[in-house]
Amino acid sequence: MSLVVMKFGGSSVGDAERMKRVAKRIVERKRDGHSCVVVVSAMGDTTDDLIDLSKQIYDGAPPAREMDMLLTTGEQVSVSLLSMAIQALGEKAVSYTGWQSGIYTEAVHAKARITNIQPHRVLKSIEEGNVVIVAGFQGMTEEGEITTLGRGGSDTTAVALAAAIKADLCEIYTDVDGVYSTDPRIVKVARKLNEVSYDEMLELANLGAAVLHPRAVEYAKNYNVTLVVRSSFTYNEGTHVKEEAVMEQGIVVRGIAYDKNVARISILGVPEKPGQLASVFSALAKAQIDVDIIVQSGVIAGSADFSFTTSLSDLDKALQVLEGIRESIGFREVTSQVNLVKVSIVGAGMVSTPGVAATMFEVISKLGISISLVSTSEIKISCVIDGSQLSEVVRELHTAYGLDTSEQAFVGGPSERR
Amino acid sequence: MSLVVMKFGGSSVGDAERMKRVAKRIVERKRDGHSCVVVVSAMGDTTDDLIDLSKQIYDGAPPAREMDMLLTTGEQVSVSLLSMAIQALGEKAVSYTGWQSGIYTEAVHAKARITNIQPHRVLKSIEEGNVVIVAGFQGMTEEGEITTLGRGGSDTTAVALAAAIKADLCEIYTDVDGVYSTDPRIVKVARKLNEVSYDEMLELANLGAAVLHPRAVEYAKNYNVTLVVRSSFTYNEGTHVKEEAVMEQGIVVRGIAYDKNVARISILGVPEKPGQLASVFSALAKAQIDVDIIVQSGVIAGSADFSFTTSLSDLDKALQVLEGIRESIGFREVTSQVNLVKVSIVGAGMVSTPGVAATMFEVISKLGISISLVSTSEIKISCVIDGSQLSEVVRELHTAYGLDTSEQAFVGGPSERR
Repeated sequence: MSLVVMKFGGSSVGDAERMKRVAKRIVERKRDGHSCVVVVSAMGDTTDDLIDLSKQIYDGAPPAREMDMLLTTGEQVSVSLLSMAIQALGEKAVSYTGWQSGIYTEAVHAKARITNIQPHRVLKSIEEGNVVIVAGFQGMTEEGEITTLGRGGSDTTAVALAAAIKADLCEIYTDVDGVYSTDPRIVKVARKLNEVSYDEMLELANLGAAVLHPRAVEYAKNYNVTLVVRSSFTYNEGTHVKEEAVMEQGIVVRGIAYDKNVARISILGVPEKPGQLASVFSALAKAQIDVDIIVQSGVIAGSADFSFTTSLSDLDKALQVLEGIRESIGFREVTSQVNLVKVSIVGAGMVSTPGVAATMFEVISKLGISISLVSTSEIKISCVIDGSQLSEVVRELHTAYGLDTSEQAFVGGPSERR
Repeated sequence: MSLVVMKFGGSSVGDAERMKRVAKRIVERKRDGHSCVVVVSAMGDTTDDLIDLSKQIYDGAPPAREMDMLLTTGEQVSVSLLSMAIQALGEKAVSYTGWQSGIYTEAVHAKARITNIQPHRVLKSIEEGNVVIVAGFQGMTEEGEITTLGRGGSDTTAVALAAAIKADLCEIYTDVDGVYSTDPRIVKVARKLNEVSYDEMLELANLGAAVLHPRAVEYAKNYNVTLVVRSSFTYNEGTHVKEEAVMEQGIVVRGIAYDKNVARISILGVPEKPGQLASVFSALAKAQIDVDIIVQSGVIAGSADFSFTTSLSDLDKALQVLEGIRESIGFREVTSQVNLVKVSIVGAGMVSTPGVAATMFEVISKLGISISLVSTSEIKISCVIDGSQLSEVVRELHTAYGLDTSEQAFVGGPSERR
């Protein structure tokens, strides 16, 4: 008998009918002989509805502590209803809030990190034969304040809980079959990966393959929790995310990701003095602006140009911040560019394979597109390019790296076809 | 500076606008120099909406533990929003759930009693200058299970909390100006009482003057908490509920209450054997049927008749129970009567004043109505009569006991007119 953590997102429990379907799924798993701990998010639009309500009460950003009090009710509703739905099917079940589950966090609101889990109530309830339903996204500080984990919080709850109770598996149920070699809406022959490594998943997650939150993947990597991303609507195998993922021979790229939420900012004519770059980026960090790729061109006549990318939503704020420090730093000009896209190829074997980058640049240039910025890591290469030909670029890359034809390597095993 | 507990019901915080109005009211009280602890119920129809949701998930009565998990989210939403609304007006505020407020209850769901309050967090937050907002209706067992207090629970929370923090006053805000001498919809000259004793209030509360839950009044009596029932829409003084209430000279009846939710059952020809009566009423108690007035006529030829009242909603169940024990007890016949009403006069001075009952019977008989059952206590007399002339009876009694004309005694003081 194995111990399985199952996580269901808000759309999987969006209404009473879906809630019952999820309950049925859990009961089947239980009756197959598994002990089940279920982590669930707030139902469908609940969180947005609560945010709307707060906006009617408070102009501007409401106090974060009270927002946490407000929003955590969403999962409490889900867990109690899901427990009822399971009991309606004749199985024992018990629901717990974050604090009841012993999930302790930092004393920070809206985006607390889990510091410690004391799962004795959860473990006792499992021993007593219950399906245990835990509210995702939430925890408690040592002082008894209610906190939330921020975006992707329920994934993190599931993974952290799986680590704390030493579960055999942490299953993330979602509306897709698993992690794909690229976006199936763009590339029809894109297909589900059977396995992917934590590091690859981290890059894919960060790059917009939004099935798993990066923080949850990091947590899984740190505690060596085997994740399975699978559909809540089908019985397909899903994608296993673990330390060592099998790669088909001759294939070095696992998947192709893209991100449309990208803007480029260039700062021109920055006087060459020590610490200038640090001043610019600490000013941006202070304003909570996330910076992704940074590229500096060579220094000419004592002044340098550099460029970086940020998210579209942060662009205006970033430009304001730069305007504010323009005089003190003494740079000449700031330009920005939108309608861009970041395309990335991801694969753990890339580092030991020459020519991977060259292939990418060739594909892009053959399509007549110029590359605005490039960034590389051991397991990925990202290019920021004009966004108008995104589909063609992704499709051509998918073909160029042999992902169209290696079907037998990624899809297979009898379990896949049931 | 005094310490005041203010309780607002669900309709007072039914939407964002009302929530803001309540916040304004609280902030005024705070700026008048009072320390304020606020107890609040779930917004408007929230509880009913949550119950509806549970019905879509679970046929029949859902597990009580999970219902408590579900329903307590309602007050958690209210407290967080109310805290935001107060902060929006520039005052410090902090919201707490039942468990965060240290409200411990029996390990019973749906109708737990408060066993113990450990208000250190509440007290600390008051000291720090906060308005403290506490979720009504809910608590926690010693084992960390979330419980609810059942009907009228928020009133009880407010009173128990007032006792625990030694508040000077517990104000119950409602949609009426206070406790009235009788129902103003029936008697136009009915008017607000300035003072009423705990015992009188208990009778009035039980008899259908639904402004205060009996359990809360009992709690207030036991811990000598001064209650004030007042309007959340006006600045009128309200009604003080306390141990000794001043009574105008010559007036013995404080108020007239009625209850339409009453049915009479008569059991005829019960063989005169010891323990028969006990058998009948323990069978009814086992079926959770509340019995109010019980009257036994004399024994004739070894058999007796007796009658009792119960609520209309329990009538069918009571008749079933009686049918089930008919043979074993050996009574002849059961009859029942509906379309009745129970009219009661309440007043602490009644016991020492002769002729009070006689006046009541006279008034009723002058209207040509026969009295079906009578019950008396030290501070009240109740008559069960045909319901068709309820208004006339109440109006005539109001006049007969001098309540129409004693305006100066009940309404007065300059504060009343502001």
